[in-house]
Amino acid sequence: MSSASSFAQPSRSRSWDALSQKDAAQLDLDLFSPEFGFGTEQLMELAGLAVALACARAYPLQATSKSDESSSSSSSSGRVIIVCGPGNNGGDGLVAARHLRLFGYSPEIVWPKPTEKQPMKNLLVQARAMRIPVVETVTEDALRKADFVIDAVFGFGFKGEPRAPFDALLTSMIRSGARVCSVDVPSGWDVEAGPDESKEYAKLQPDVLVSLTAPKPCAVHFRGRQHYLGGRFVPPGIAERYHLRLPEYPGSEQIILLD
Amino acid sequence: MSSASSFAQPSRSRSWDALSQKDAAQLDLDLFSPEFGFGTEQLMELAGLAVALACARAYPLQATSKSDESSSSSSSSGRVIIVCGPGNNGGDGLVAARHLRLFGYSPEIVWPKPTEKQPMKNLLVQARAMRIPVVETVTEDALRKADFVIDAVFGFGFKGEPRAPFDALLTSMIRSGARVCSVDVPSGWDVEAGPDESKEYAKLQPDVLVSLTAPKPCAVHFRGRQHYLGGRFVPPGIAERYHLRLPEYPGSEQIILLD
Repeated sequence: MSSASSFAQPSRSRSWDALSQKDAAQLDLDLFSPEFGFGTEQLMELAGLAVALACARAYPLQATSKSDESSSSSSSSGRVIIVCGPGNNGGDGLVAARHLRLFGYSPEIVWPKPTEKQPMKNLLVQARAMRIPVVETVTEDALRKADFVIDAVFGFGFKGEPRAPFDALLTSMIRSGARVCSVDVPSGWDVEAGPDESKEYAKLQPDVLVSLTAPKPCAVHFRGRQHYLGGRFVPPGIAERYHLRLPEYPGSEQIILLD
Repeated sequence: MSSASSFAQPSRSRSWDALSQKDAAQLDLDLFSPEFGFGTEQLMELAGLAVALACARAYPLQATSKSDESSSSSSSSGRVIIVCGPGNNGGDGLVAARHLRLFGYSPEIVWPKPTEKQPMKNLLVQARAMRIPVVETVTEDALRKADFVIDAVFGFGFKGEPRAPFDALLTSMIRSGARVCSVDVPSGWDVEAGPDESKEYAKLQPDVLVSLTAPKPCAVHFRGRQHYLGGRFVPPGIAERYHLRLPEYPGSEQIILLD
């Protein structure tokens, strides 16, 4: 793996434009403003469902893989570890874990710290009611043995350095060599500039990336197998305001595989 | 159409058991209790999405119908009228309208009365932000001209007689002969006993029924084309408590076509 700067691909034509970190934050505020009227739990549910659907497509269960038409899929016995951060990215992970359980997977949630934040508290209750184990930490070895790992640690708001215990969790994820599906942003990456070989925590190379609402600038550095877009809830006024150029979702699909 | 009592089919074996009106109400309270921790906006989003997905399957858009594999589908130019009641059933309709708009349909919402209730107020803001017309009333003729109509007037809580203006709206829906997709319960039906020929408002015969969580007892009287189940969010503790016997959803599907 080379340094971040060598990843730049200015000449490649894509079906999407990236949404800057600043615009992503403002777009989020807009969605929850009285003008657009969305609620956090509501959009987190759609985002987490999209992540679960992308994982079900990328890592189909062995028992159901016969009916899967994707040639690039790799089958799964269903053991998935979801590593959650303290913010909304972690909330998306909690929702995804619940839907994956309903799809027949065997998820385990890593939630490192107690929280008083809503909707996280409710999402943890829901996950436990779904009989999903919730643990505080996870070893590199356990991550290695999982079929795949969902990285729901940091999202589009990430800046600076990860704090403990998330720094060590990121390093474990990277060293484990596990197949990682990152939610919105590969955790530890600079949201604009992408990975950084000079930093231990910033070297994650996910197998699958699920961008939410719109890909962030760092997504051009994604070198994994499948890049999905989810979060099919953007009203036209928002798309116009942020000049979003996104591919059209097919039919009633909640996710789309990007090129 | 004969009287309700002649509809009984005690001998037919089904893949599901019905949930009584009383149990449906208690199950709903349980989901939102601290034990299970769900939120109204969250589950309404999943329920409304399921309704939209069922409509997209039952009435595929002409432009996208090539890829639709269902032989019993009838294509649609996408003009759909969603008639909403004042409660949670109406809320499911508002969510469905928004998703259908995102799927490429041209929905129009009939919302007869101003409301101060959340989450309805926010859902109306979201629908308007999606540039969906919201009107207070609708004529029998307009209903007739729609490709299909979503009946989101009354749900599992309905008892007694419908009040104005919903009584007249139900009569218009019935007289229009429109293809109707009912959300959870065909509006005007007794939740347990089903339709009643002796009452003008209780004669609706929907083309499609989308049961949510579990079919209600009246669903055995459904004589339409397709009966779906949606609301794939029931934790095992709830399923056990109410002895739910439901078919397994395939893969990551949010709806299942019942037999």
